[in-house]
Amino acid sequence: MATKHILIVPGDGIGQEVTAVGKKVLDKIAAKFGHTFTYDEALIGHVAIEATGNPLPDESLEKMRKSDAVLFGAVGHPKYDNDPSAKVRPEQGLLKMRKELGLYANLRPIKLFDELLGASSIKPEILKGADILFFRELTGDIYFGEKGRKNDGDTAYDIAEYSRYEVERIARKAFEAARTRRKKLCSVDKANVIETSRLWREVIQKIAPEYPDVEVEHQFVDATAMLLIKDPRRFDVVVTANLFGDILTDEASQIAGSMGMLASASVGDGTGVYEPIHGSAHDITGKGVANPLASILSAALLLDISFGMKAESEAVINAVDQVLKAGFRTRDIADQQTPADKILGTEAMGAEVMKHL
Amino acid sequence: MATKHILIVPGDGIGQEVTAVGKKVLDKIAAKFGHTFTYDEALIGHVAIEATGNPLPDESLEKMRKSDAVLFGAVGHPKYDNDPSAKVRPEQGLLKMRKELGLYANLRPIKLFDELLGASSIKPEILKGADILFFRELTGDIYFGEKGRKNDGDTAYDIAEYSRYEVERIARKAFEAARTRRKKLCSVDKANVIETSRLWREVIQKIAPEYPDVEVEHQFVDATAMLLIKDPRRFDVVVTANLFGDILTDEASQIAGSMGMLASASVGDGTGVYEPIHGSAHDITGKGVANPLASILSAALLLDISFGMKAESEAVINAVDQVLKAGFRTRDIADQQTPADKILGTEAMGAEVMKHL
Ligand SMILES: CC(C)[C@H](C(=O)O)[C@@H](O)C(=O)O
Ligand SMILES: CC(C)[C@H](C(=O)O)[C@@H](O)C(=O)O
Repeated sequence: MATKHILIVPGDGIGQEVTAVGKKVLDKIAAKFGHTFTYDEALIGHVAIEATGNPLPDESLEKMRKSDAVLFGAVGHPKYDNDPSAKVRPEQGLLKMRKELGLYANLRPIKLFDELLGASSIKPEILKGADILFFRELTGDIYFGEKGRKNDGDTAYDIAEYSRYEVERIARKAFEAARTRRKKLCSVDKANVIETSRLWREVIQKIAPEYPDVEVEHQFVDATAMLLIKDPRRFDVVVTANLFGDILTDEASQIAGSMGMLASASVGDGTGVYEPIHGSAHDITGKGVANPLASILSAALLLDISFGMKAESEAVINAVDQVLKAGFRTRDIADQQTPADKILGTEAMGAEVMKHL
Repeated sequence: MATKHILIVPGDGIGQEVTAVGKKVLDKIAAKFGHTFTYDEALIGHVAIEATGNPLPDESLEKMRKSDAVLFGAVGHPKYDNDPSAKVRPEQGLLKMRKELGLYANLRPIKLFDELLGASSIKPEILKGADILFFRELTGDIYFGEKGRKNDGDTAYDIAEYSRYEVERIARKAFEAARTRRKKLCSVDKANVIETSRLWREVIQKIAPEYPDVEVEHQFVDATAMLLIKDPRRFDVVVTANLFGDILTDEASQIAGSMGMLASASVGDGTGVYEPIHGSAHDITGKGVANPLASILSAALLLDISFGMKAESEAVINAVDQVLKAGFRTRDIADQQTPADKILGTEAMGAEVMKHL
């Protein structure tokens, strides 16, 4: 029986709707397993800009630092997307959070629930059994290097940067994880063109001998984008840089049937942050149709990784599985065979999961 | 009846095998349509390094400049991939060729031959009718910016750069192409994080009003990587930066069943270069199993774009279609239904195509 303080950071768009459901699940777990979870909320993204002018107010950051874990939603707003010259942007809050909390390792497990085999655009016989764990580096690369304009604004530049130290710490996490799984590590880079990728490959080659039980391969990012779809089962653990990880994990969401199913954990030096890999999805915001399962599964990751509560985490995953087995779907994971009365909105899907807890 | 001088640049690995077949097809077309095609050969990549120490000898570049079109193979060798600190690399030859010839627009048409509907890992009902034309910018971005090491080699950096002018000229080519097709243009960037992407989006927004008949959308690269698999038919023309284009077009090759089917045209200020999008594939080099259809279809693009020979180009595409209809496959596009005697090697596949010319 543990006492933990959880910070809820819904952010923008459907972040609000799905995080509310994730929190309910945490509450139910606390009651069932006799833990005491206390909660607070904090602002980030567009909602924070509206309220304070700052996409990550100091108060939010302080609360994050003091909490035992953060359940995060999403950030983003079409307003800024249509205005490339906006100086203050929701995403700055997200990036600052990652940097300030030292969240250098973003874990994105891609695993298909058997019941969703039909929901993907990829053939079931290609998908069946696919189980990939991505380690995306999260505090370096072109995301955090200097960027700006030259020549009276007519030329834009972004600097990508990696140090050996940054590559090594994420690589070690990936090697360790591979050891507990199928013992295969695929490191993804573009070492035939990019210098940061060459450093990346050097570091992986250098530390690989310390993990002789792990089979290592190097793939170029373009080939990987192709292989993920062609033969997802060939991958076990994948480790890659921030930008490549961003692209490849969104792509890989199709392996899991829908982005609405995928949770992620960002960990590093301090408080861990748990969030769906989907974005703020303003096109469906407020309609009550967003899939809450990614937030629920983020709560499961939070229980496992930040609190070491394996049984609690498994109870959540199991509940999701039961609900899918019972035939319930949100719109994004429904297919032609799903009867209309089994297609649920955000809250109703949350309520079904709660029944199995 | 025209007289044209074509430079054959096979490069490395299977580049040699497939380009030989592409050349035969060009020869047959010349004979059939009464043209005079003369040929020369030039070195690039690993084979050029072995012969001269230089991945793109001046002599090769001179020959390229003087020819009416270049039929290109591939570059690359595992030797350099395993040695990230190698100073001279095959890919430098390719990048130098692109830069020196001003090949800023790389066209990659992704279209599925109906007969290959089953060969893809994506479901036929998702794929049927998909037809995408990618415009990948080819002489800017992180490929060509300054790169190097700092802190005694412990930190690596790469600078990505774009000027308005560079974005505008590729964007205009994409807009013009969209006009001749379904009038939809998707511009792909990462404007929520990257400054070069913000410039990119600004330029597209600025020139869009000049093409009021073209419907423009902006997508983030991560979302695009997902949407390409989830719903490929939503795309018509896609325009994007060098690195994103590299990744997305390899991924999109799965829409066409196999990378072995995809041709590309690189055009700009001078001589156009035509090449398969696949690489040097040293794992199958010398085995005679490489799919020559991408090189044959590159020859078709060459005839169409550099020589304006529409009928000749269509004759080639039609011959490929006939061969596929007759059930012939190379290994990469065969499926469980393909009888063993219909699975052909590189030369036999080339010979089948020739029969239909
Ligand atoms: C919102 C955006 C800045 C973010 C990223 O690119 O990291 C998102 O796509 C993600 O993957 O968490
Ligand atoms: C070989 C490599 C440098 C090249 C690239 O990245 O441009 C290749 O992947 C391509 O797409 O033509």
